[in-house]
Amino acid sequence: MVASQLADVLSKLQSLYSDHASVVSMNLFVALLCTSIVIGHLLEENRWMNESITALVIGLCTGVIILLTSGGKSSRLLVFSEDLFFIYLLPPIIFNAGFSVKKKQFFRNFITIMLFGAVGTLISCTIISLGVITFFKAMDLGSLDMGDFVAIGAIFAATDSVCTLQVLNQDETPLLYSLVFGEGVVNDATSVVLFNAIQSFDLTNTSPGIALEFIGKFLYLFVASTLLGEAVGLVSAYIIKTLYFGRHSTDREFALMMLMAYFSYILAELFYLSGILTVFFCGIVMSHYTWHNVTESSRITSKHAFATLSFVAEIFIFLHVGMDALDIETWRFVNDRPGTSIIVSSVLLALVMAGRAAFVFPLSFLTNLANKSPIDKISLRQQVIIWWSGLMRGAVSMALAYNQFTRGGHTESRLNAIMITSTITVVLFSTVVFGLLTKPLIRFLLPHSKVTTSMLSEQSSPKSITTPFLGSAMDSFDDSPKGGQRPSSIRALLTTPTHTVHYYWRKFDNAFMRPMFGGRGFVPFVPGSPTERSEHGLSQLH
Amino acid sequence: MVASQLADVLSKLQSLYSDHASVVSMNLFVALLCTSIVIGHLLEENRWMNESITALVIGLCTGVIILLTSGGKSSRLLVFSEDLFFIYLLPPIIFNAGFSVKKKQFFRNFITIMLFGAVGTLISCTIISLGVITFFKAMDLGSLDMGDFVAIGAIFAATDSVCTLQVLNQDETPLLYSLVFGEGVVNDATSVVLFNAIQSFDLTNTSPGIALEFIGKFLYLFVASTLLGEAVGLVSAYIIKTLYFGRHSTDREFALMMLMAYFSYILAELFYLSGILTVFFCGIVMSHYTWHNVTESSRITSKHAFATLSFVAEIFIFLHVGMDALDIETWRFVNDRPGTSIIVSSVLLALVMAGRAAFVFPLSFLTNLANKSPIDKISLRQQVIIWWSGLMRGAVSMALAYNQFTRGGHTESRLNAIMITSTITVVLFSTVVFGLLTKPLIRFLLPHSKVTTSMLSEQSSPKSITTPFLGSAMDSFDDSPKGGQRPSSIRALLTTPTHTVHYYWRKFDNAFMRPMFGGRGFVPFVPGSPTERSEHGLSQLH
Repeated sequence: MVASQLADVLSKLQSLYSDHASVVSMNLFVALLCTSIVIGHLLEENRWMNESITALVIGLCTGVIILLTSGGKSSRLLVFSEDLFFIYLLPPIIFNAGFSVKKKQFFRNFITIMLFGAVGTLISCTIISLGVITFFKAMDLGSLDMGDFVAIGAIFAATDSVCTLQVLNQDETPLLYSLVFGEGVVNDATSVVLFNAIQSFDLTNTSPGIALEFIGKFLYLFVASTLLGEAVGLVSAYIIKTLYFGRHSTDREFALMMLMAYFSYILAELFYLSGILTVFFCGIVMSHYTWHNVTESSRITSKHAFATLSFVAEIFIFLHVGMDALDIETWRFVNDRPGTSIIVSSVLLALVMAGRAAFVFPLSFLTNLANKSPIDKISLRQQVIIWWSGLMRGAVSMALAYNQFTRGGHTESRLNAIMITSTITVVLFSTVVFGLLTKPLIRFLLPHSKVTTSMLSEQSSPKSITTPFLGSAMDSFDDSPKGGQRPSSIRALLTTPTHTVHYYWRKFDNAFMRPMFGGRGFVPFVPGSPTERSEHGLSQLH
Repeated sequence: MVASQLADVLSKLQSLYSDHASVVSMNLFVALLCTSIVIGHLLEENRWMNESITALVIGLCTGVIILLTSGGKSSRLLVFSEDLFFIYLLPPIIFNAGFSVKKKQFFRNFITIMLFGAVGTLISCTIISLGVITFFKAMDLGSLDMGDFVAIGAIFAATDSVCTLQVLNQDETPLLYSLVFGEGVVNDATSVVLFNAIQSFDLTNTSPGIALEFIGKFLYLFVASTLLGEAVGLVSAYIIKTLYFGRHSTDREFALMMLMAYFSYILAELFYLSGILTVFFCGIVMSHYTWHNVTESSRITSKHAFATLSFVAEIFIFLHVGMDALDIETWRFVNDRPGTSIIVSSVLLALVMAGRAAFVFPLSFLTNLANKSPIDKISLRQQVIIWWSGLMRGAVSMALAYNQFTRGGHTESRLNAIMITSTITVVLFSTVVFGLLTKPLIRFLLPHSKVTTSMLSEQSSPKSITTPFLGSAMDSFDDSPKGGQRPSSIRALLTTPTHTVHYYWRKFDNAFMRPMFGGRGFVPFVPGSPTERSEHGLSQLH
């Protein structure tokens, strides 16, 4: 997959960078990235805006300016490329997601997350596909084959977790955050796996055999990708633990972590697996083992450098989507019948909302039945927030839509053009309108959770650590139940199966995995390291 | 320049990444990068080896294995591309060079460094060109035009400072380090500027007018590039100082620093200036102002992340050069007359040594005449080390040679193929043989400098900081004379013109620049920042 994509992106880039005008574009683009970061920072105190919307709006404005100055000829600096997105922008975002996720919460809610992310996405995809088929027949819109319809389902089943996470707070609403976040990642992977499976299957004649084969392939991809990611992560932990003790080297350690993370991604592509899932689980394993085996400087560097790369990639995507939204070439196709595009967009938006409602509420009900402890039950208000938070569509949808409905960055038929413009409309509308309403909605539904504006974007939007390095860094990778502070988690440990699994996992982890691969408390004392000294200093103070 | 280069590199990459075999190549390449880092670490204690030679040898071995397994058809995973090199690999290396240079030493020896880097490179280029012209006429080798001969001069005047710096130690031999390092950067820039100037000039008829025009262009490029880099660096310092106070955000700060650094590079390309010089001076300004305006986590992150990027780029280059050395296609051209290639390589090596000797010793003599204080005089032994350290030829030479003598990665004529293979031979021989002999030579010539194996690679090769963050970080960016510790520097301050300039610069810096752009001691107190707390903790301890 990567190979052909790379060839595509390169041929597209080639036509762009072939003269001095492209240097101008690159300059403008980097300047816009800087502007987005600065303006995003200035608007941080604002209760409505967030970084994604800022970048999107700046992109739109730039598009308008270019459109006007070029006399309505072009609004694009760079053609949006699903390949650029999948090869360079998505891996750092997903890796950082795995690297910075609160593993305890994630694994406590693992079954729920998997239900939402995998089963939910399948339900959502099915409903959207069926809805689009019915609607297209009713409207008599023309010829799309079965594959196209299922692809539309996969495209609009892909939620945009990036935008959502900027308004949810890991510390204020840990359950919601881990559910929405975890579902987002699994959902991304599911959509992409689904989409690739659709493209490789012949869907002109459907039979139960194909459905079974499809599910089998899906499960294989899921399990194999997960295991590969974990294996690469463990290898990195083992290498650094074995070789580097006593002679640590920050630059080498960080270089190895970076290279191994990307290695997991391309290794997955080598075996035709899902790179997204692989790199996500590689991130989780790296934060659980590798991260504890390196020096304190390496920890700070890796934590922030990975977060920064992810942050820049996100801004880049939203800026790009904003600028690309005004692609005059595609809009011209639908110009003669603007009503159609609006109707299609509205129907798609309605289907997105219905498709999500169709799995969030039933699956939440099922989860609540299985969970006996009341603190793990999902209240109706929380269900509404989960439903709402996943309504936004973003870069993954755009990338998949371009992949399905364009050839080499250009739309070929009127119907394809309508699908592209509808996708853009849905992405813009859901990101801006739903995105702006999310913060107020959460405050309205969960007023007791003490959600203050300044604390809202604590985890997801970049903020400096004002607590000491170690404390903060350790805290965000917290995965051990602390008896004194969280009595409920110990009580709950044995009441539900998930917790029992977690309990035995921790026993296994402490008995076998950590002595082998390192991890917190299992890396020998490094003399003279800042960690040691700062603890020493503190203990003398008290 | 960037535009056409990008188009080239992309078209080359496109042909490479067009199938699954290229995913295999990418996997192998990333795996080799990891292997080089690990083996380089294991060999660190070895007194002969260094990271560059390790990567080069691993690349060569891989090339041999591929050559054998493919049945002598190909030894290349990726075609060496001078464009990949100039656009992605060189900027981080040069930026980090500026970012991590000890500015005090650099500016104290500024005039000497400029003499060596600019005038020296011109002398070296002239001598090599004249030597090659004489030799080619004597050997009756065929038709190269005037431009080719001068280009050969520029190609072999470009020293490889990367390899040298791995054996010199900033703390043990500060004067030598700053001279060789500074000369290396200026020399790289000079060679590239020279090379581009040659390509844009019509050298078929030489006249005094053209020579003057050439010098004028060279000076313009030099001054304009330097000013641009400083301007971008100051803008980044100003933005972060003005906007971020009180609400620091590590990820945003680091993202801005990264983007602005790359922005300076492509901005230089936009104005047809020298990106290398620009990004180098941008790095110096950023480390002097911007770096002091950010949070402690940002400082640690930026310091190590930039160093890591540079480190990975270096390993990448050497691995690539090693693998590319066995390019069977080029060697086949010269296979019928292997003797010619050996003779040409030997002559070129001799010219490189003569060309370097022709400016190191005379220019050192001139510098010693101007310097009155004995500690700044360059002894004969030091001159020999400077001469020897600059004999290695590396990636810059390779890139320029490929640019001049190939079209689209393929050699066209037998003479061009001989030039390519000779360049490869000179690079391999000088890097491996001269490189291996450098450490023993320095130990032989300067036994009093207490050069111990473990301390040798302290600064240039990646090593973790075992001293506290702040102390160590501050130390490596030290640029203020400390009265108690370095009495000689205060005495010397007024004895030579360079020091007088430095004195007035510091007055100006403290009175105007630092209050405006921040910098050490001029950034207001950030409440609760780790810096502050750790100092607080220490003061309580004592």
